[in-house]
Amino acid sequence: MALSPLTAVLLTAKRSMGLSFADLGQRLGADEVWVASLIYGQATATPGQVEALVQALGLEGDGAELAKQLTIYPVKGALDPVIPTDPLLYRFYEILQVYGLPLKDVIQEKFGDGIMSAIDFSLNVDRQDDPRGDRVVVTMNGKFLPYGKW
Amino acid sequence: MALSPLTAVLLTAKRSMGLSFADLGQRLGADEVWVASLIYGQATATPGQVEALVQALGLEGDGAELAKQLTIYPVKGALDPVIPTDPLLYRFYEILQVYGLPLKDVIQEKFGDGIMSAIDFSLNVDRQDDPRGDRVVVTMNGKFLPYGKW
Amino acid sequence: MALSPLTAVLLTAKRSMGLSFADLGQRLGADEVWVASLIYGQATATPGQVEALVQALGLEGDGAELAKQLTIYPVKGALDPVIPTDPLLYRFYEILQVYGLPLKDVIQEKFGDGIMSAIDFSLNVDRQDDPRGDRVVVTMNGKFLPYGKW
Amino acid sequence: MALSPLTAVLLTAKRSMGLSFADLGQRLGADEVWVASLIYGQATATPGQVEALVQALGLEGDGAELAKQLTIYPVKGALDPVIPTDPLLYRFYEILQVYGLPLKDVIQEKFGDGIMSAIDFSLNVDRQDDPRGDRVVVTMNGKFLPYGKW
Amino acid sequence: MALSPLTAVLLTAKRSMGLSFADLGQRLGADEVWVASLIYGQATATPGQVEALVQALGLEGDGAELAKQLTIYPVKGALDPVIPTDPLLYRFYEILQVYGLPLKDVIQEKFGDGIMSAIDFSLNVDRQDDPRGDRVVVTMNGKFLPYGKW
Amino acid sequence: MALSPLTAVLLTAKRSMGLSFADLGQRLGADEVWVASLIYGQATATPGQVEALVQALGLEGDGAELAKQLTIYPVKGALDPVIPTDPLLYRFYEILQVYGLPLKDVIQEKFGDGIMSAIDFSLNVDRQDDPRGDRVVVTMNGKFLPYGKW
Amino acid sequence: MALSPLTAVLLTAKRSMGLSFADLGQRLGADEVWVASLIYGQATATPGQVEALVQALGLEGDGAELAKQLTIYPVKGALDPVIPTDPLLYRFYEILQVYGLPLKDVIQEKFGDGIMSAIDFSLNVDRQDDPRGDRVVVTMNGKFLPYGKW
Amino acid sequence: MALSPLTAVLLTAKRSMGLSFADLGQRLGADEVWVASLIYGQATATPGQVEALVQALGLEGDGAELAKQLTIYPVKGALDPVIPTDPLLYRFYEILQVYGLPLKDVIQEKFGDGIMSAIDFSLNVDRQDDPRGDRVVVTMNGKFLPYGKW
Amino acid sequence: MALSPLTAVLLTAKRSMGLSFADLGQRLGADEVWVASLIYGQATATPGQVEALVQALGLEGDGAELAKQLTIYPVKGALDPVIPTDPLLYRFYEILQVYGLPLKDVIQEKFGDGIMSAIDFSLNVDRQDDPRGDRVVVTMNGKFLPYGKW
Amino acid sequence: MALSPLTAVLLTAKRSMGLSFADLGQRLGADEVWVASLIYGQATATPGQVEALVQALGLEGDGAELAKQLTIYPVKGALDPVIPTDPLLYRFYEILQVYGLPLKDVIQEKFGDGIMSAIDFSLNVDRQDDPRGDRVVVTMNGKFLPYGKW
Repeated sequence: MALSPLTAVLLTAKRSMGLSFADLGQRLGADEVWVASLIYGQATATPGQVEALVQALGLEGDGAELAKQLTIYPVKGALDPVIPTDPLLYRFYEILQVYGLPLKDVIQEKFGDGIMSAIDFSLNVDRQDDPRGDRVVVTMNGKFLPYGKW
Repeated sequence: MALSPLTAVLLTAKRSMGLSFADLGQRLGADEVWVASLIYGQATATPGQVEALVQALGLEGDGAELAKQLTIYPVKGALDPVIPTDPLLYRFYEILQVYGLPLKDVIQEKFGDGIMSAIDFSLNVDRQDDPRGDRVVVTMNGKFLPYGKW
Repeated sequence: MALSPLTAVLLTAKRSMGLSFADLGQRLGADEVWVASLIYGQATATPGQVEALVQALGLEGDGAELAKQLTIYPVKGALDPVIPTDPLLYRFYEILQVYGLPLKDVIQEKFGDGIMSAIDFSLNVDRQDDPRGDRVVVTMNGKFLPYGKW
Repeated sequence: MALSPLTAVLLTAKRSMGLSFADLGQRLGADEVWVASLIYGQATATPGQVEALVQALGLEGDGAELAKQLTIYPVKGALDPVIPTDPLLYRFYEILQVYGLPLKDVIQEKFGDGIMSAIDFSLNVDRQDDPRGDRVVVTMNGKFLPYGKW
Repeated sequence: MALSPLTAVLLTAKRSMGLSFADLGQRLGADEVWVASLIYGQATATPGQVEALVQALGLEGDGAELAKQLTIYPVKGALDPVIPTDPLLYRFYEILQVYGLPLKDVIQEKFGDGIMSAIDFSLNVDRQDDPRGDRVVVTMNGKFLPYGKW
Repeated sequence: MALSPLTAVLLTAKRSMGLSFADLGQRLGADEVWVASLIYGQATATPGQVEALVQALGLEGDGAELAKQLTIYPVKGALDPVIPTDPLLYRFYEILQVYGLPLKDVIQEKFGDGIMSAIDFSLNVDRQDDPRGDRVVVTMNGKFLPYGKW
Repeated sequence: MALSPLTAVLLTAKRSMGLSFADLGQRLGADEVWVASLIYGQATATPGQVEALVQALGLEGDGAELAKQLTIYPVKGALDPVIPTDPLLYRFYEILQVYGLPLKDVIQEKFGDGIMSAIDFSLNVDRQDDPRGDRVVVTMNGKFLPYGKW
Repeated sequence: MALSPLTAVLLTAKRSMGLSFADLGQRLGADEVWVASLIYGQATATPGQVEALVQALGLEGDGAELAKQLTIYPVKGALDPVIPTDPLLYRFYEILQVYGLPLKDVIQEKFGDGIMSAIDFSLNVDRQDDPRGDRVVVTMNGKFLPYGKW
Repeated sequence: MALSPLTAVLLTAKRSMGLSFADLGQRLGADEVWVASLIYGQATATPGQVEALVQALGLEGDGAELAKQLTIYPVKGALDPVIPTDPLLYRFYEILQVYGLPLKDVIQEKFGDGIMSAIDFSLNVDRQDDPRGDRVVVTMNGKFLPYGKW
Repeated sequence: MALSPLTAVLLTAKRSMGLSFADLGQRLGADEVWVASLIYGQATATPGQVEALVQALGLEGDGAELAKQLTIYPVKGALDPVIPTDPLLYRFYEILQVYGLPLKDVIQEKFGDGIMSAIDFSLNVDRQDDPRGDRVVVTMNGKFLPYGKW
């Protein structure tokens, strides 16, 4: 999966600065996952956030110029092929295959006919220590949107 | 998407008994999402859980006989087409498209090269009241599995 | 594309009663397109709307029994194959192919980064008389949802 | 989704001039959506419209030369992948999945066997203010074409 | 490719009556290709045409009842798989692959930016005798539709 | 759909010379559609036809050198994606979807089990004036090939 | 891959009669591969061949009635999925993947621009004894069809 | 279908030397189809065969250097798209669709449960003169491999 | 994934008899994986093996009759969809995605240009006890087949 | 299938140094298959392993710089197309098609409902001498992961 030139520049700078997404999140006043989605071209920054990112990553010249594109609303959705083959990514597709219909029924039993928004939405990643092996906790939080009738 | 005969029987009985997945979860000593995944043919029950379910749903005759299949390890994965068209289900695919690579990077930055297990895994749904519209909170909790080297 | 038994029963009854979707819409207090989406298994009715529909269509026995399924939240999305081959349906896919990116840019220029909801949404069909050939006017009206940041 | 060189040049110039599609529409005597479709390589301009666009965008040299391609009839249809993954674009595909068959039935009930043309066609975007959240109104207007018999 | 029950009944009756599509065309006052498209569920007949067809094919009872469905506007498009594997059908797909872009350029050079309608359209098949092997002549005749600008 | 370098050179030269495919056809002693298929890399020219084309288009240097490739038998079939999204091209696919099986039956009723050749084949485009809108007439003429038995 | 009822009846009868395809070929005056293709619904028999087959297989009643369908020109092409997963069948697809372009170049170097017909065509299977393991020899024999120019 | 740089160099040199695949086969002591498969990157040569090919084609400098890659075991399989659209290539896919199951049954009736190897395999192309049109004869010869049981 | 009637009968009988695949393997003188592949319609049994299986499973009447089909060479390959969604099955596809090219290079470095046969092949499953969690050991053993040259 | 620049550099250096994957494995203290997966961008090395690889392959300048990327967690999964066409790779897909369901049943009969991990996993290739033709032995060893219930 080829990275866009902008994403490649930002990830390289991040590595050479030795900064984590959480570090960048503090500089931009945002969550680490959101910052990562910005860097991957899936979200839009304010000019102030671009400025903070340029400074944090020590970008100059072409890199700083390129970063201005972060204020343009992107065409989103980035996986190639459409069913991801990377094992970490695939597990989320597998969760949808195995637990999708049960999830739908439980959500709609609690809320009625409608959906969980993926737009008015946030996504967090936490680490849960466990002596049998630490655990990844992914929390999705989206507004319930009931179907309109007209 | 055609339901299997077993799933159809169980969902119909559940509706006529007026029971929620949470009600069934209490009877089986299990979470509501897991019970829903059992009913959708994505999990395996113990004979005791089958017994509890048969009683809770008032199944008799053929229905009770059919329910014994819940102890057979199923072929899992149930979506047709492979990219779901139901709007609630699609939003989870969209989250993977938009936030998949950011999620991968943040998880691996915190844990190293590996994945979140979808097997040693649980999934919960909660309601968060909000005056601007209540919110769906989906929590995924999976063991981190580091890549083996050999 | 095979119709579900419920949809087949409802459409046959509608034809034998000589009622239009607009007629049914008046009985149910709803728009004709929404009523059609209910009959095609894409929306959920209240028990009162089911009652009104059963009476309007003169359903009895099995048909009336089947109609109760209209209160169950359906798995939505109904096209087979995923790119429709029916010419009327395909034109809407073609509009997306030809005018999709322009539409995205114009909507986001007016509203910012976000989407038009397809859930908090209505859809109307009108006829516009024109001596050179009457015209179909399709109006989509959906709430703008701005992307959340967190 | 890679933009063609021509589209990239035009969008960059538009941004640096601070012009909206509506501004460009006024200069070309055309609707903003049509102008956007021209810029995305989905429509054909007259030489006069090319001239007006070149002036409005301050194009010179290679850019002005490139713009002459806008008079060549393009190969249309621009989405990659064929089922769009961008959330705003996908919602229009979802509307087709959920409301496609109902829409077909209502149109044909009003007009007979035939289609809404996507060629003798216009598409408009309007903003409808609403205290609960402003709404996007998309209006499609296409000539009804009855099926020929021979 | 499974035939619909209606198509199967009509084709079987046609064979047992020893009638050609041209024979049926004379009875219905229509071209043989159009009659074949009606029988394959791709066109809509008037009640008078249904009556003529029922008589020509000697249909009674269930068959005559079934034939009434020919007045319902069908969901069109009938090939499975979407790229046909039957050799006669595939050749038309191959013509599109090999001669599609040349055909587009020649049509648009003669007519401007637009399409040949497949709705206001007729299709004829003729036999051209040739001592080196007779030839199939397929003539497509569709109204040119120029792209609207707005 | 990216054009090959050779096709791009030939089409650009054709435009700058102000020649139609019909003009080129006269120079090469061939039909306009066949010339277009040659330019799109779907047919093979004789050295004499290459010479005539080079002269007609005023090609020199690299362009003339490149044109020699027109004598190499090409890998044919040029559409991307395999179901075309360009509206003019798609209509021919739609004709195959809607009228494919009827066409097959009528051809085979007239000729027996076999196909219309797409190799021993010609394709012409004509304009038919019509006060209600001019019409495109596409004529396909292919040798009937009966199935061998052995 | 589900067999058609006719194919299933014929293969069962063939097995119970203990006849090989070669035996049947002798009765029908045809090659064993062609007879197999007839039984799989890919070819058309004369009434005399149907009669010979009915007798050879000892068909009576419904089976004999069903066999009359062998005179109807079939919709051909029978693999599901379109890239076969059966290992014997897949090897022929693999030969096309690995040796397809070389085969094209060698055929066209010998014959010019054109194809090997798959219609005016025969296919034979022979056994070649070999002490290191016997060999399958498949011989395809098709008329060369040069591309028409017009 | 883009050729690899190595294939492009070899085919160009072959054309400028005026050599056929059969000529090259004589120089390398191999069949013409095998030589073509080597040039298309589907087979591996010995260093001696590379030397012979370099001399026959008059390669020097970069070309000769590049040719050394012919000793590296290639990733094989080369068609794009996976169902070929070139008419000559497609016919072999069509033969698989139409005659695949009959071929399987005849081979297995003669040999038992197993396959024809596509590895211990050869492929030859011959010309058969015929006053009604010369014929292409393709002969595939592969070792029969019976299924192991364990 | 629907099981064939034969597979369903055999698996049900196996469960009611309380026999493992290893138990059946002992009765048939074969490995447990091979017996499972026979039951899933992927291998062919001798009449003696069918007899042993019928006795072991206590089949009578229709079931015993059906079991005779185990001597017919099956159409093999059984996954639906072609990229399996069952998590256990998918892991083997994932191993191919992640370790496929490395595996190819290591095998070919050891053996030369060729393949591991999947026909002259066996597959075993063993359990390896491990205090950190028992391990599945899958051993594939296939004859190396070097590419033929001709 | 295009190799990444890093993979191409490493494979070229490996060939010019005349080292096998087993040789490299000894230098890095790792199995040959794992080293190959590292070189193909499917695994992550420690800085010490990168250093050892750089020395073993005699990399300098750009090559040595590029090799540092081996410490970045890669996006894994590398096959194009998703069903591999290379014959050696395809055989592993075929094994999954033919023996997948039997393998699933035998593993789950031995271990219960769960999967073989492809993460806590190793893969080895051995040569087994055999007078009838040497054999490839592929051993997969993965931790069994039982499904969680919650």
